[in-house]
Amino acid sequence: MTAPARGVLMAAEIAEQPAVLQRLLQDGRGAIAEVAEAVRRRRPRFALLAARGTSDHAALYAKYLLEVRLNLPCGLVSPSTLTAYGARPDLADVLWIAVSQSGSSPDLVESTAAARALGAVTVAVTNAPESPLASAAELSVEVLAGEERAVAATKSYTAQLLALYLLLDTIGGGDGSAAGDLPRIAEQVLAQPDAVRLATRYRFVERLVVTARGFAYPTAREAALKLMETSFLSAHAFSGADLLHGPLAMIDEDRPVIAIVPDGAGGTALEPVLDRLHERDADVLLVGDEKVLAGWAGRRSTVDLPLPSGVPEELAPIIQIIPLQQLAHAMSVARGYDPDAPRGLSKVTKTR
Amino acid sequence: MTAPARGVLMAAEIAEQPAVLQRLLQDGRGAIAEVAEAVRRRRPRFALLAARGTSDHAALYAKYLLEVRLNLPCGLVSPSTLTAYGARPDLADVLWIAVSQSGSSPDLVESTAAARALGAVTVAVTNAPESPLASAAELSVEVLAGEERAVAATKSYTAQLLALYLLLDTIGGGDGSAAGDLPRIAEQVLAQPDAVRLATRYRFVERLVVTARGFAYPTAREAALKLMETSFLSAHAFSGADLLHGPLAMIDEDRPVIAIVPDGAGGTALEPVLDRLHERDADVLLVGDEKVLAGWAGRRSTVDLPLPSGVPEELAPIIQIIPLQQLAHAMSVARGYDPDAPRGLSKVTKTR
Repeated sequence: MTAPARGVLMAAEIAEQPAVLQRLLQDGRGAIAEVAEAVRRRRPRFALLAARGTSDHAALYAKYLLEVRLNLPCGLVSPSTLTAYGARPDLADVLWIAVSQSGSSPDLVESTAAARALGAVTVAVTNAPESPLASAAELSVEVLAGEERAVAATKSYTAQLLALYLLLDTIGGGDGSAAGDLPRIAEQVLAQPDAVRLATRYRFVERLVVTARGFAYPTAREAALKLMETSFLSAHAFSGADLLHGPLAMIDEDRPVIAIVPDGAGGTALEPVLDRLHERDADVLLVGDEKVLAGWAGRRSTVDLPLPSGVPEELAPIIQIIPLQQLAHAMSVARGYDPDAPRGLSKVTKTR
Repeated sequence: MTAPARGVLMAAEIAEQPAVLQRLLQDGRGAIAEVAEAVRRRRPRFALLAARGTSDHAALYAKYLLEVRLNLPCGLVSPSTLTAYGARPDLADVLWIAVSQSGSSPDLVESTAAARALGAVTVAVTNAPESPLASAAELSVEVLAGEERAVAATKSYTAQLLALYLLLDTIGGGDGSAAGDLPRIAEQVLAQPDAVRLATRYRFVERLVVTARGFAYPTAREAALKLMETSFLSAHAFSGADLLHGPLAMIDEDRPVIAIVPDGAGGTALEPVLDRLHERDADVLLVGDEKVLAGWAGRRSTVDLPLPSGVPEELAPIIQIIPLQQLAHAMSVARGYDPDAPRGLSKVTKTR
């Protein structure tokens, strides 16, 4: 008997994503439309999002959708203000969305129950419809990712993004149909060998910066977390705007940059940041829309990882993260680690 | 003629902080009370904060005060949703606070003007009352830090924290008197040699994690930014809760941890995180309330940097950051850098 190969769970769950997205599109939309209708009837005026870890990046993605697509002022919750500090805000007219794969983090359960009691319309977005979080919230959306066994979340993240997109697009009067091509495009991206090849390039990197603006910023955050979790390197994520306010000083020949470039306002807003990085001779990998990258013809990058064109900017995060998950997995294995068993982590983290 | 010593500007501005706090308490409170009264009359139901870089950490501090002290649901703005993406939310009943030392970052000016047009009560908190940001906002608070010449912001940060405390405490019906002791305590902390001595201990560190929960979390973020700006190391800040969701895997013998521990709920909430770090044999520096640290008697730390007791938790961030500024300065000089001239940075960053 041979020992199981390192990282098989994570690899399998990365590869499963087209099927997960397809299942959510086929089987999840009816239930999501009902939740959307219940939210619409309450006419929320503000939105709050509560999440931890990878799910926090899905929440950040939802924040951009809430602000841009639904024109709702929006905040990411610090759950400790409700739990540790006992704040009791008036949450009438507030839409509260809690995002969690397991639905079992005590501070999210407790703060969501408090938010509901304080008058918010509460929605739990989980991969576990029987979880305490789903019970604590008035409304519940299941992301239908199937059991996730790898410690590093992958398929549950893209499923959260798509579920949040479908929910918020439907609240805004859309039918979510723009997402229909995602399973096919995800399949296409998974078949590209580029990300795995890049693991060789970054084999000995100890410090790295990931940057983006707008809808792609959650991708930068999630990519940095995946690299940290699986390969133990220091991966810093900065919004392109914040990068210029201080951390730019960190960028040098030993610290490569990964930038996420969608076709749209977020990609355009990143251009001056990329130009500043170029002036500093930074080593830059661009992960983004192949037409945008082709237009720049290598002038803003050291290496390009092109992604299929034609994905609307607000859906692109569901695709952009896939090669970065592959890169995190391949780097971890190349470094002799097991991405399925990161040091010091367990699948369900309970914070109070 | 000898060349000026490295880091003299930053050192002088760190040392100036007791006087800056004193001036704001003496000369700034009248104007702040008027702004507070104008905000109270509008009875905001929701708050949004806009800022970049160091000021973003002051905004995060204000978020905790808004949620805990004023019971207002609250969010940190992604300025790009109003500028790059053209979102047009209904901001009636919204208090919009923009924080910026220079008051001249175009995206803050533009998004604050947009917020005002969309119905928000807009307040600019700046060190430059004649700045475009102060003009764009309906109401303006001056932090009275005096000209800041070092690129790494220090005195403008603690002045922003105090101005925000005074503003929000006054909106909540307080008189800000709990802050009266801060100049004296800041003086006392500046006289301690501990932080400068620690620069030797961290002379060769390349990667470091800073953690805290609640009101002290902005201190962790700001300390990490100062270390990155001046010493170019990788300093990651994590909320204690988020640290357990993934990045804990990064902590090893080469990556020390700095934890900020106030006397209060945020310190208590950090205990399980410190215990997990202890299990992993992490090297932990505790910066915090001397009574709390004495009570733990070294069981949760490798090194202690005690701060004077008796500072209320919501004011402690104004004190906690001071030794960490000193540490950033001393480490930068010890490494042969000039903290007054970080690579690639200028004092006023203009992002759109």
